[in-house]
Amino acid sequence: MRASTGTRAAVLGAGSWGTTFAKVLADAGCTVLLHARRPELAHEIGETRENAEYLPGIRLPDRLRATADAAEALADAEIVVLAVPSQSLRDNLTEWAPLLPADAVLLSLMKGIELGSTKRMSQVIREVTGAGPDRVAALSGPNLAREIAEEQPAATVVACTDHDRAAQVQAACHTPYFRPYTNQDLVGCELGGAVKNVIALACGITEGMGFGDNTRASLITRGLAETARLGAALGAEPTTFAGLAGLGDLVATCSSPLSRNRTFGERLGRGMSVEEVQRSTRQVAEGVKSCRSVLDLARAHGVDMPLTEAVVRVCHDGVPVTQMVKEIMSREAKPE
Amino acid sequence: MRASTGTRAAVLGAGSWGTTFAKVLADAGCTVLLHARRPELAHEIGETRENAEYLPGIRLPDRLRATADAAEALADAEIVVLAVPSQSLRDNLTEWAPLLPADAVLLSLMKGIELGSTKRMSQVIREVTGAGPDRVAALSGPNLAREIAEEQPAATVVACTDHDRAAQVQAACHTPYFRPYTNQDLVGCELGGAVKNVIALACGITEGMGFGDNTRASLITRGLAETARLGAALGAEPTTFAGLAGLGDLVATCSSPLSRNRTFGERLGRGMSVEEVQRSTRQVAEGVKSCRSVLDLARAHGVDMPLTEAVVRVCHDGVPVTQMVKEIMSREAKPE
Repeated sequence: MRASTGTRAAVLGAGSWGTTFAKVLADAGCTVLLHARRPELAHEIGETRENAEYLPGIRLPDRLRATADAAEALADAEIVVLAVPSQSLRDNLTEWAPLLPADAVLLSLMKGIELGSTKRMSQVIREVTGAGPDRVAALSGPNLAREIAEEQPAATVVACTDHDRAAQVQAACHTPYFRPYTNQDLVGCELGGAVKNVIALACGITEGMGFGDNTRASLITRGLAETARLGAALGAEPTTFAGLAGLGDLVATCSSPLSRNRTFGERLGRGMSVEEVQRSTRQVAEGVKSCRSVLDLARAHGVDMPLTEAVVRVCHDGVPVTQMVKEIMSREAKPE
Repeated sequence: MRASTGTRAAVLGAGSWGTTFAKVLADAGCTVLLHARRPELAHEIGETRENAEYLPGIRLPDRLRATADAAEALADAEIVVLAVPSQSLRDNLTEWAPLLPADAVLLSLMKGIELGSTKRMSQVIREVTGAGPDRVAALSGPNLAREIAEEQPAATVVACTDHDRAAQVQAACHTPYFRPYTNQDLVGCELGGAVKNVIALACGITEGMGFGDNTRASLITRGLAETARLGAALGAEPTTFAGLAGLGDLVATCSSPLSRNRTFGERLGRGMSVEEVQRSTRQVAEGVKSCRSVLDLARAHGVDMPLTEAVVRVCHDGVPVTQMVKEIMSREAKPE
């Protein structure tokens, strides 16, 4: 492990995961600038050492400073962490691109597929910034932000086609409570992260309808299988889906009351409409948007994803959840 | 799907899973005799149509009769279901062997590895009865008994090296709420079932200590990986572990408050000793016994199973849970 003390990192996006990961980097010895779009949030974090809106009760380390000035955040950054909502990445990054230091690693914390283009986040990053593959990485794993902010032990995967860059990021975020592994399968890690939000919605829906752990375990199993099928079509390594960024992230997201996507689904399962749930929650459930782009991506590659399709039908086509469950449960008995 | 109405089935063992599966068979159209060792339990089931001790509140179907007479249960049975504690199978079956109809399928519901011999349940069955491989099957999947007894939708795997036999069992237990898939990888299905109890103990321990869903998801991921390594050494199909009898069963068991092994671990995690937990629970936690035989089996085949080893150290060597967690969390950062 390289010494990371003194590494300069910028984290763009001060939501719960961005703020938590900024704390991890600071705890690992980096000098961190956390960029919040709203000056009042940046000011509050500076004054109180807390992001009361997204991470209440967590004291942020002194090595972490907040700013609403993107140029200030990015100046001299060696690691640039992108932690904005997936569907806003392109616009945000277009604005930030001229400020990016030429050699910085661009690390995505985002889990989604862009609507319309069906591009993964690393593809959007490369397209907007012109960065080579060796500079673009993604971090993914069973990483519920709140638990990590509380310094509960967790593991994650730093994915980059360039191993040395992955190792650089690994060193920069390794703390006694946060253990990063490297992986060169960027495609697999990003797909695992994007599709798990969709499967978590399905798990939430059945849970909201009163179904138990057998049902959830079956959905997780079949959801991972369809994720791996998509991965195979896109050139991902099959083993990635059995690892922390596949199975691990999926299980954590589908089980936790902290998961926004699972919770969103649970409310749908209890009978609320998509619009009603959206009005009742402040945070974005990525899966509601990206289920559509995941399905488009699957269709473009001729991959069958019945669970994702069912979620799209509920979230975008107005199909009642009862009919969705009936459809996914009523298949013929056959070899596994 | 073959018509199964009228198939005669004997279920040996009237615990919660044996009783639930007897109900499934009856609901699928089989004529079922459920054998309880204690005459008073058989009598009570007959009188009240309920197994109040192991499955309170579930009305058992009329096509299911209970008896304490093994000869009566087994006479003319086409499917013999074995649902006794793993470590008592050999003794029980030695007693029942002369009563078994010559052509009956012998279906194991048990999830364990025999202590001392390190044999899987199907191996014990073949050894004691002399049955050929085409007559011995196992059923495994995300099948928490209580949820299935309540007729919540669930899927399972019927494993037999002989596909026709697996299909026969599949037809005999297919109901609107219970969907069986066939699989010819008997070894993989049995290993998935045996090791998941051990991993569930580990998950329960960390949960009892206050750790959350990130930790559990990491343990599930690493637990499945070590199960698959053992499977590879014993000739199982890798895909089995990604399916319902691997991942599915593991996730259900590690998540549910209904899981005896998870609950047993949770009490250990809260500071009780193995003896104290054993005194406080009425039912058997298979994993406490079989963690030792799983580890013996792994060592005999040169397979590294660090989580299983950690559970053995807590359950049998008196190692404190805090030390166990420290050991499994403190490994070096490395490629995944």
